[in-house]
Amino acid sequence: MEIDLGQGRSTDQVRPHNLSMVLRYLHLAGPLSRAALTQRTELSRSTVATLVAELTERGLVVEGPPRSPSGPGRPSPEVRLADDGPVVLAVEVGVDSLAVAIVGLGGDVRSQVRVDRERSPVAAREVVAEVHRIGGPLLDAQPAPLVAIGVSIVGVVRRTDGLVRIAPNLGWRDEPLGELVAEAFGADVPVLVGNDADLGALAEHQRGAGVGLDDFVFLCGEVGVGGGVIMDGRPLRGADGYSGEVGHVAVNPDGRPCRCGSRGCLETEVGEPALLRAAGVDPTRGGREAVDEVLHAAARGDERAVRALREIGGWLGIGVAGIVNIFNPRRVVLGGYFADIFRYVDDQIGGALNSRALPATGASVEVVASRLGAQALLLGAAELAFAPLLADPTLFPGVPTETRRAG
Amino acid sequence: MEIDLGQGRSTDQVRPHNLSMVLRYLHLAGPLSRAALTQRTELSRSTVATLVAELTERGLVVEGPPRSPSGPGRPSPEVRLADDGPVVLAVEVGVDSLAVAIVGLGGDVRSQVRVDRERSPVAAREVVAEVHRIGGPLLDAQPAPLVAIGVSIVGVVRRTDGLVRIAPNLGWRDEPLGELVAEAFGADVPVLVGNDADLGALAEHQRGAGVGLDDFVFLCGEVGVGGGVIMDGRPLRGADGYSGEVGHVAVNPDGRPCRCGSRGCLETEVGEPALLRAAGVDPTRGGREAVDEVLHAAARGDERAVRALREIGGWLGIGVAGIVNIFNPRRVVLGGYFADIFRYVDDQIGGALNSRALPATGASVEVVASRLGAQALLLGAAELAFAPLLADPTLFPGVPTETRRAG
Repeated sequence: MEIDLGQGRSTDQVRPHNLSMVLRYLHLAGPLSRAALTQRTELSRSTVATLVAELTERGLVVEGPPRSPSGPGRPSPEVRLADDGPVVLAVEVGVDSLAVAIVGLGGDVRSQVRVDRERSPVAAREVVAEVHRIGGPLLDAQPAPLVAIGVSIVGVVRRTDGLVRIAPNLGWRDEPLGELVAEAFGADVPVLVGNDADLGALAEHQRGAGVGLDDFVFLCGEVGVGGGVIMDGRPLRGADGYSGEVGHVAVNPDGRPCRCGSRGCLETEVGEPALLRAAGVDPTRGGREAVDEVLHAAARGDERAVRALREIGGWLGIGVAGIVNIFNPRRVVLGGYFADIFRYVDDQIGGALNSRALPATGASVEVVASRLGAQALLLGAAELAFAPLLADPTLFPGVPTETRRAG
Repeated sequence: MEIDLGQGRSTDQVRPHNLSMVLRYLHLAGPLSRAALTQRTELSRSTVATLVAELTERGLVVEGPPRSPSGPGRPSPEVRLADDGPVVLAVEVGVDSLAVAIVGLGGDVRSQVRVDRERSPVAAREVVAEVHRIGGPLLDAQPAPLVAIGVSIVGVVRRTDGLVRIAPNLGWRDEPLGELVAEAFGADVPVLVGNDADLGALAEHQRGAGVGLDDFVFLCGEVGVGGGVIMDGRPLRGADGYSGEVGHVAVNPDGRPCRCGSRGCLETEVGEPALLRAAGVDPTRGGREAVDEVLHAAARGDERAVRALREIGGWLGIGVAGIVNIFNPRRVVLGGYFADIFRYVDDQIGGALNSRALPATGASVEVVASRLGAQALLLGAAELAFAPLLADPTLFPGVPTETRRAG
């Protein structure tokens, strides 16, 4: 195969790169003075002024006196995201619910609707129709320009085209979800689809328990177990976008058959049904209520519930230790129902790290619960949708200006 | 923690970036005409001419008529690495041997010495003295300027400073190998230390079974089992540089105790001692000869040897399937003794991928034997040592020009 190192860099690429950096600072850190932007980007004051002027011109940011008082002397003007700037539609297709939200830059959730769904196989087209039913009115009610739609799906997604290869809990195989969503919304904006755990990792990295960390793993427990991995500050993707599927690491070769065709995968040993089964709750009931029941029972000292949590904690510990050995993350963030059971299994995970992780990796990792909770996936879908614009702010405005709200 | 997106880009950084790219093309692809460089870098002809002139001026490349005839018309001058350009000293500290080599850009091994060593714990200082004893004369005998020393070590290395955290087969814990080597050679050049499997992955990526692939895993079996991972074209490092230690993924929770303190790690089930034990060969003997004995016996149809290989193949398959699920690589490259046993276990690995890998990931991966064999680690150590110069060719010449050989 031919060596491909990519293309050389021309001076034309410097400005878009720096525009992107300034916009991303405001997107992630909130309002900043020009002085702070100058300091963070290590660019000259005049360069920063030019960049801010261009972003203002494009309707992405505004400048004004600082909203909160600063130190003595003449205050440096504060740069912040424009209130009437672009928005995205974030969609979350989960096992128990569907959710949609209108999100602006800065992770600003303008409006949101979540509806429960039956935990049973369903046609992709039906799900998309329901997403449109609840998402359409939100879109109609908001005046800001829509630039993209981001979709989080509880399944394995091919990164090149958003094809859902498999979503076992929905009964899907090879569903062109991105296309279906674009069709339903008649959208002339890009539709981007991502795996839920990958998007959870992205959101926790930018606004949750992974802020400031270059290397961490988001491990999400629901019916299935998903993983999203950030390494060296970037999402780990793999050849087709399926990297980080740690739910199907074998932890127990003699364990239960897994829906993936293997047996004893982490997912089969620590997914929600495994907890419910161990606790004597009908696993087909499922859902947050059923998990809460087990947690309440454990809090009351119910022996079977406590034993069930210990069993899950043991396997989860083996899984986390393996993940720590493989990735050497600074932190493992437990999301989904793992966040709820964390205080019951914290010690066991620590014990497994002591006995099963390599000393060097085990000593430098911290295991914590998700900080964004149920919002992680919608926020991650919004980040996915905003990524092209953040990478190149000159893409905006890409819609006729007359359709934008008068400033 | 504060958001840190790094600094903005200035036009001053464009030239070093492009110099680096041109040099890396020559380093990896061999001699190229200016026309080919122009095409690959997508820079203008005049920019490429300027870049080549600077690299020539620095003594890194030379231009001349093409060594092999090209098509009709006036031949474009061929740019190639200078014969008297910089070299590095590559060092490999293995379980059974020590090796040193003088390597030029382009992976050009100028001279090399390998000596056997006893498979027993040994002080780091003694190993370094031996490395100096065999490496010193090689250095004295070569006239090219030395720019760095790269060391491959069969252990876990902290990336920030080259501290060997643990090398169980040498009996080391927290040995400052980089410092010791620098001291022994009285070197005023950087000494860089890397984990053997990580360096094997680097070498296979640049010159072996991973060329042209952005996503692959190098899985190396010796006494221990190491992993090196390339994702998105870059080595996976993790928070401290320990990422990819797939040898300590649990494949058999009830398996044998592992030297790492855990039990049933991939390494305990498929490392060289496991094969020898299963085949009835004294595992303390170890080494390539003992493995060859098992392979010869299997070739003769010896039942115990065949059964031993099947046992190893079974666990290796589980391990490879797990690695494939976790990383979604395009290829898994088996190195070390795994390359030797590959044709005996190929089917079993394929079977495990069918039954245990997710369909999407399992279908898109290929498992192959290492292409560089025993040279992988030395070449990887050389790549590690050359990395700073390749990233910024303006670092060279960094030694007084009078110490360089007259061109």
